[in-house]
Amino acid sequence: MSHVPVIESKTNELIKSTKRLQQKKFRDQLGLFFLEGIRIVEESLETPLVQRIFFTKVLHDDPRGKALLLKAKRQGIEIFECGEPVFRVLADTVNSQGVIAVVKKPTWSTIPRGVLLIADEIQDPGNMGTMLRTATGAGADGLIIAPGSVDPYNPKVVRSSMGAILHLPHWSLNHDEIFGLLEKESFKIVVADLVDAVEYSTISYPSNLAVVIGNEARGVSPIFLEKSDLKVYIPLLGPVESLNASVAAGILLYEILRQRRCNN
Amino acid sequence: MSHVPVIESKTNELIKSTKRLQQKKFRDQLGLFFLEGIRIVEESLETPLVQRIFFTKVLHDDPRGKALLLKAKRQGIEIFECGEPVFRVLADTVNSQGVIAVVKKPTWSTIPRGVLLIADEIQDPGNMGTMLRTATGAGADGLIIAPGSVDPYNPKVVRSSMGAILHLPHWSLNHDEIFGLLEKESFKIVVADLVDAVEYSTISYPSNLAVVIGNEARGVSPIFLEKSDLKVYIPLLGPVESLNASVAAGILLYEILRQRRCNN
Repeated sequence: MSHVPVIESKTNELIKSTKRLQQKKFRDQLGLFFLEGIRIVEESLETPLVQRIFFTKVLHDDPRGKALLLKAKRQGIEIFECGEPVFRVLADTVNSQGVIAVVKKPTWSTIPRGVLLIADEIQDPGNMGTMLRTATGAGADGLIIAPGSVDPYNPKVVRSSMGAILHLPHWSLNHDEIFGLLEKESFKIVVADLVDAVEYSTISYPSNLAVVIGNEARGVSPIFLEKSDLKVYIPLLGPVESLNASVAAGILLYEILRQRRCNN
Repeated sequence: MSHVPVIESKTNELIKSTKRLQQKKFRDQLGLFFLEGIRIVEESLETPLVQRIFFTKVLHDDPRGKALLLKAKRQGIEIFECGEPVFRVLADTVNSQGVIAVVKKPTWSTIPRGVLLIADEIQDPGNMGTMLRTATGAGADGLIIAPGSVDPYNPKVVRSSMGAILHLPHWSLNHDEIFGLLEKESFKIVVADLVDAVEYSTISYPSNLAVVIGNEARGVSPIFLEKSDLKVYIPLLGPVESLNASVAAGILLYEILRQRRCNN
């Protein structure tokens, strides 16, 4: 590919400033984050969010990779070839297929009515990413990230979301914002909890609904328990204390979806 | 605690031989594996499987830890105090709370009729552990680990199973053994797949049932597709290609459970 700058120095200013996006502080300041891997970078080119792309020879030698680079160039996106050692300064995974995109955080103006998932102090990046992925699959209308949760633009969250980070509307809000919004739009708050709860599959879910999944160790936080309209539990028939947070989210969201599809 | 040997050398023979259990080869040879963390080691003392325990001062200084050690001693289990650097040679996590047990792999003689989960080339340890945990919660009767899957005694699998590794009957079998067994006991084979499949929530599941969850990237392997009695899909309403394997297992197993509870 002609006229592509090649970066061979790890101390290159652009590499140094891009590497900072591995830290939440700089992602927040700049409103940017990383995507790694060919499929997700391809997907990102369907959005107007991509700012620049770093790649290695590995990508360029692959026909699919070459097509990706051509498409990016046509869109006026800056592309930079890096030597392998330079690329590894930026890459979070060994398996990034020689491509990283620096992407603007997507934004969504209004919060839709419908089914929202609320991540309440979800701290494991894999769980947060899987919740984004699952909520997208289940047709949820958005994800609200409550205080105390992992940053959804953490590279591990982005990776385990399998692209959903670009598609599912999501907002990081404080408690006042969350309850203000849910009240204004008459959302019912359903929390997954084991105490004083009804079996999740025995009730009919309202149409305007926020499903709260709590912290991996401590469960739903007191403020959401207090504000909840309904507590549901997923039965545990064998000797485990709880389910994984993202599995619980999947079971609840798909039960809500199943009920909707049965009733239509 | 009196008369407890203290190991201060990383080259101690017992430490060296125990460390080998981090490798599958030695776990297979010796029929042993590791448990880390106070809760799971407490649980393991309810079984006859514990061979020996390594701990640090951190555990001994905790009342719950001290009780654990007393219980182990009463059961005639060997206990060894380790200096922090020695302990770290064995520990897979930073958060092992100063206790590791060396435990015999549990065995189950006969495979029960009922609902079995089959892990078909599940390679991510977190997914395998979460599948053990979820299947236990959903009241499944066992897990069959098909060829090409991660070792269920891998420390990351054990950890994410949250104790289920001790409770859920499971067997690592080759394809001939699996199909021989399923045929002999008249199991129906249900695979989760997107092609030529029916929506998972629209059918009635038979009572003797093996649910196959396939590889994270490639899905169910050809041999299970060929041998399947029923293909089911979980609908994807938003732009994701698939669900996480352990989330899909949870959605299917809990739908099967929901149907049973509705019909009883």
